[in-house]
Amino acid sequence: MSDTKTVRFGLLGCIRFASKFVRTVTQSSNAVIIAISDPSLETAKTFAAANNLSPETVKIYGSYDELLNDENVDAVYLTMPVTQRGKWAVTAAEKKRHVLVEKPPAQDATELEKIVEACESNGVQFMDGTIWLHHQRTVKIRDTMFDSGLVGDVRHLYSTMTTPVPEQVLERLTKEAMGLAGAIGELGWYPIGAALWAMSYQMPISVRALPSSVSTNSVGTILSCTASLQFGSTATTTVTATAIVHCSFLSQLSTDLAISGSKGSIQINDYVIPYKEDTAWFEYTSGAKFVDMHIGWNVTPEKVTVDCGGTAETQEAMMLREFTRLVEGIKRGDLEADRRWADISKKTQLVVDAVKKSVDINCEVVHL
Amino acid sequence: MSDTKTVRFGLLGCIRFASKFVRTVTQSSNAVIIAISDPSLETAKTFAAANNLSPETVKIYGSYDELLNDENVDAVYLTMPVTQRGKWAVTAAEKKRHVLVEKPPAQDATELEKIVEACESNGVQFMDGTIWLHHQRTVKIRDTMFDSGLVGDVRHLYSTMTTPVPEQVLERLTKEAMGLAGAIGELGWYPIGAALWAMSYQMPISVRALPSSVSTNSVGTILSCTASLQFGSTATTTVTATAIVHCSFLSQLSTDLAISGSKGSIQINDYVIPYKEDTAWFEYTSGAKFVDMHIGWNVTPEKVTVDCGGTAETQEAMMLREFTRLVEGIKRGDLEADRRWADISKKTQLVVDAVKKSVDINCEVVHL
Repeated sequence: MSDTKTVRFGLLGCIRFASKFVRTVTQSSNAVIIAISDPSLETAKTFAAANNLSPETVKIYGSYDELLNDENVDAVYLTMPVTQRGKWAVTAAEKKRHVLVEKPPAQDATELEKIVEACESNGVQFMDGTIWLHHQRTVKIRDTMFDSGLVGDVRHLYSTMTTPVPEQVLERLTKEAMGLAGAIGELGWYPIGAALWAMSYQMPISVRALPSSVSTNSVGTILSCTASLQFGSTATTTVTATAIVHCSFLSQLSTDLAISGSKGSIQINDYVIPYKEDTAWFEYTSGAKFVDMHIGWNVTPEKVTVDCGGTAETQEAMMLREFTRLVEGIKRGDLEADRRWADISKKTQLVVDAVKKSVDINCEVVHL
Repeated sequence: MSDTKTVRFGLLGCIRFASKFVRTVTQSSNAVIIAISDPSLETAKTFAAANNLSPETVKIYGSYDELLNDENVDAVYLTMPVTQRGKWAVTAAEKKRHVLVEKPPAQDATELEKIVEACESNGVQFMDGTIWLHHQRTVKIRDTMFDSGLVGDVRHLYSTMTTPVPEQVLERLTKEAMGLAGAIGELGWYPIGAALWAMSYQMPISVRALPSSVSTNSVGTILSCTASLQFGSTATTTVTATAIVHCSFLSQLSTDLAISGSKGSIQINDYVIPYKEDTAWFEYTSGAKFVDMHIGWNVTPEKVTVDCGGTAETQEAMMLREFTRLVEGIKRGDLEADRRWADISKKTQLVVDAVKKSVDINCEVVHL
């Protein structure tokens, strides 16, 4: 393998969840993990052993600084708690490492702007780890549902990310671990991002957290929140749209995305992580109406299945493919860093911040 | 057929939609249509011909008063515009006719209270035509999902009723035809009712129409609205719940009901009128979580199918069966009028009114 074809990754943080990234890189043809790091060397060693990362080919560091000083590292994947991501993402960019950072990438838009500026001024690629945006299903819906006009103008949208946390753990969700936005950042990032995606990244004109929807634990960490996002008229439609986003650590796992348009509707119940790795589906109706006498519908939902090439083209693999394509291009000198992913992150973070602000001001409207 | 076994219906209003009711009665074993009426005798005659109602067995009247004076009529089915339902339902009750009235049964809770009081003081049964509450699927969900504990406490709920109206017709939706609540009454009745049903008729503590979600036509009729309903703590849970209800004449047909509970979730996309008459289904997950490394789910949604006995036990047939069961019991002297259906109507109407009020006061919170 030539140097320009292989992206050499270092891990900043060895949480258990990072195993998925290791697996994806290991299965890829143009990326490799050459170093891992954690503030606890013990944690890093345990992670290496659990993930079959041999000390002969993978350096194991007991600090992020050491890894960032390893000249062989091209790119880093950051999984430490959100409260530390800003600092280390900026440091990584300044060391000319390409930055793939778990979501949410920062504590607020100001901190994210610093990361993005550091990446841009140092000519390195930025991307946050919102995997579902890379799934082929996501791409297919954009192509076949929106761009084709089957859905029409989006009029209403509902999206959730809820996952239950055991009661005794809820109290341990501190702001130091979770960031000031709590569940709005950790979970709400997904439904807010889904709303923006469906609206083709048109920004809402205002947001509002809904009264009584906000729960906190005894240390003030936000555990659940529902918010509405109001979208104004555009060049193509004078009708406004509303998105409802819901996130919670208090409900069973749900990752729903329901889009209601002027001509059609789309339904997905596993948009964040598909039920299965090798295949995914969505349902839609277009031109639906009740039949005569209102005893049924003229259509039933169409189910569209997307094959993930066995497991060769999972959403993780597709994200890695996009990130390495960009990094390789920059390494070869063919490409400049692509700002698209940073723009998506920044818009998502701005809405996360606005919802958090609405919570802080007693669920009043926050204008963007 | 003995007199006590057959409920003899008269129709107040001959709109096209009433054909469904005629069909259901015709297929039933214990009900019969003996008279129809419309302010336009021509409309009534045309309806009779279109629905194979022979003038030899069915009286055709050119006024509601004439039908209500026909001593052979036991019960009436009211389909005239909502703005006239209150007056005629009260008149029917005073004439000792049992009342089955299309939804929404009245323009507001005050008017509905008058109908219900007239029914109670005259010993006749009241029921509004919210058909889906009678579907066997609805009953099955209650038994197998809620009462069994599979869903746990409802934490969040999303429900819609949207149906597109051609642009040139939107302007003709006057308050005289639609009532003061517009789409909130005509369509919102369904998602609001679904929220109350899922919450076992616990009333919300407050409601709020969402800013920018409200559209009106040039004569001020509400065409679309999204609202949030806040439910307070109960004897069994301290965690509050939020319901989002959405109604619109500006989106494609959608009738979604998504319920997110502490232990499970339920998904239906045709709760108002099932896709097909002979069968219906819902999907649920319970105890769902991501598998190790978050590469999928431990479950996929379970699909539960409910057979409607071919088409012998459609939701219309089940509603008629319940209504005639009560009417026959009252006729025999075995039963008193059942207040349960009136209670459901009244609660639904109170929430409809509260959402309408929130729209009127610039989307401020309305406490109930």
